[in-house]
Amino acid sequence: MARRVAIIGLGLIGGSVGLALKRAESEAVELVGYARRPETADRARQLGAIDRIESTLASAVDKADLVVLATPTMSIKEILSQIGPHLPAACAVTDVASTKVQVMQWAEESLPQGVSFVGGHPMAGKELSGIEIADADLFKGCTYCIVPGRGASEAAVQMVVDLVHKVGARHVILNAAEHDRFVAGISHLPLILASALVMATTQSPQWPKMADFAATGYQSTTRLASQHPRMNRDICLTNGENIVAWIDELTKELQRFRTLIAEGDLGLEQAFERAWQARNAWIEEHGKKS
Amino acid sequence: MARRVAIIGLGLIGGSVGLALKRAESEAVELVGYARRPETADRARQLGAIDRIESTLASAVDKADLVVLATPTMSIKEILSQIGPHLPAACAVTDVASTKVQVMQWAEESLPQGVSFVGGHPMAGKELSGIEIADADLFKGCTYCIVPGRGASEAAVQMVVDLVHKVGARHVILNAAEHDRFVAGISHLPLILASALVMATTQSPQWPKMADFAATGYQSTTRLASQHPRMNRDICLTNGENIVAWIDELTKELQRFRTLIAEGDLGLEQAFERAWQARNAWIEEHGKKS
Repeated sequence: MARRVAIIGLGLIGGSVGLALKRAESEAVELVGYARRPETADRARQLGAIDRIESTLASAVDKADLVVLATPTMSIKEILSQIGPHLPAACAVTDVASTKVQVMQWAEESLPQGVSFVGGHPMAGKELSGIEIADADLFKGCTYCIVPGRGASEAAVQMVVDLVHKVGARHVILNAAEHDRFVAGISHLPLILASALVMATTQSPQWPKMADFAATGYQSTTRLASQHPRMNRDICLTNGENIVAWIDELTKELQRFRTLIAEGDLGLEQAFERAWQARNAWIEEHGKKS
Repeated sequence: MARRVAIIGLGLIGGSVGLALKRAESEAVELVGYARRPETADRARQLGAIDRIESTLASAVDKADLVVLATPTMSIKEILSQIGPHLPAACAVTDVASTKVQVMQWAEESLPQGVSFVGGHPMAGKELSGIEIADADLFKGCTYCIVPGRGASEAAVQMVVDLVHKVGARHVILNAAEHDRFVAGISHLPLILASALVMATTQSPQWPKMADFAATGYQSTTRLASQHPRMNRDICLTNGENIVAWIDELTKELQRFRTLIAEGDLGLEQAFERAWQARNAWIEEHGKKS
């Protein structure tokens, strides 16, 4: 396990990694934190998510065994090129971004030889963000994707696998293209749907009268629309092709339902039953308690 | 308040009405229950959702001040025509169906003069069904729509309003056409979206590998697909025109997002921000704790 870990970016995910790691490792690991805003870093230290603050990227990664990038996706490229010259030889760098192809490419372009990049993506989160809701239990039982970069050392991959286990998650190793295609379907498509549903309803001239009737069903279905807009934009900018393909699949299904409904087709029950069975099968095997 | 209430249909909603009413009124009201399957009625009595079982519709409504129809929507027409001849004069009949225009029409066709029909729709529920999960708190704080039928007496409307308050909900009076248009947007459209999302993802050849990555976001967005397929069919069969109109609105929004994503448009952030603000505004005013 890494002995000095630098966490760059101290929002919900970075803060939660720190809290979970500190709880698991206590004295055995030193957590160095960097955040763009000093207040955020101060708060992270107060909460126990890091041991020590560094005020520059260069000093934050100094002597680090492992660097965890937990910033917005679109700032990763710039940060990689800034930390590159200051990374210790044989250091491992990982990230927590929602998309991997683009990030792996940036890492390949920016990191010096000898440094291993091992992409990471914890399949956990909340619709809200920020250090204040960081939670040592955030990753408990979640699936955590690991995408080893070209030429990453076995030791570096193992260091990230250890991190994943220490924060309470279960690791799955896959390649970047596969990762991006999968998450486009189960995570990014739902986000687009939730946002489109909010827009279609709230822009209606009837919304002021309708709003009062919307209940828990509306609330669940739209939940992801409350994810941070910048994060959502970054996801779309780095995984657009896959997301568009899934939107097209979804649109076909939606049109199938539309036809059945417009025709009052009795096959509707069967259509709902197939969705019902498919979801229940998934819930039984993979459903989360929350 | 009614002194004898007949509850026809003892699933989640009928059972919860009984439990909530019994808790509020205790000895002051007698709850007579009817269910198609004797086991269901027995279980409802064991759980305290009704005081007494009747094994025919005719005997269940005998001397009732208020009849609550809590059966699947598509069986309401048949039940109305069966109970019609046995209803006491000046009796009030209400229902809990998710759509109102069709039900109001059936009531007008089937009920004898003097009997008042007052449509009802509690904006509460769970994705599961059945008497076992009936809950005295199900309606606590929820919006409960009331749609008075043509010629319904003031006393009958008041009896249903009292019922709504006794079960812990807040009543809103509106007309059937308005009701159906509103709930098509905030309740039926989300249900179709959830089902279409389940189909688009689970039918993909990649699903067996993807399923493991789906997390709480997927779970929330698809929740309504686990509603009972028969109930979903009935909703579509009785509110198809409104639902189709909302599907078309949603499709437009989805295509707007698709275009922005395909073009990598920086306007994406603003689009997500508008959805984010609109949902947060709704949550602040109307959000549910669950």
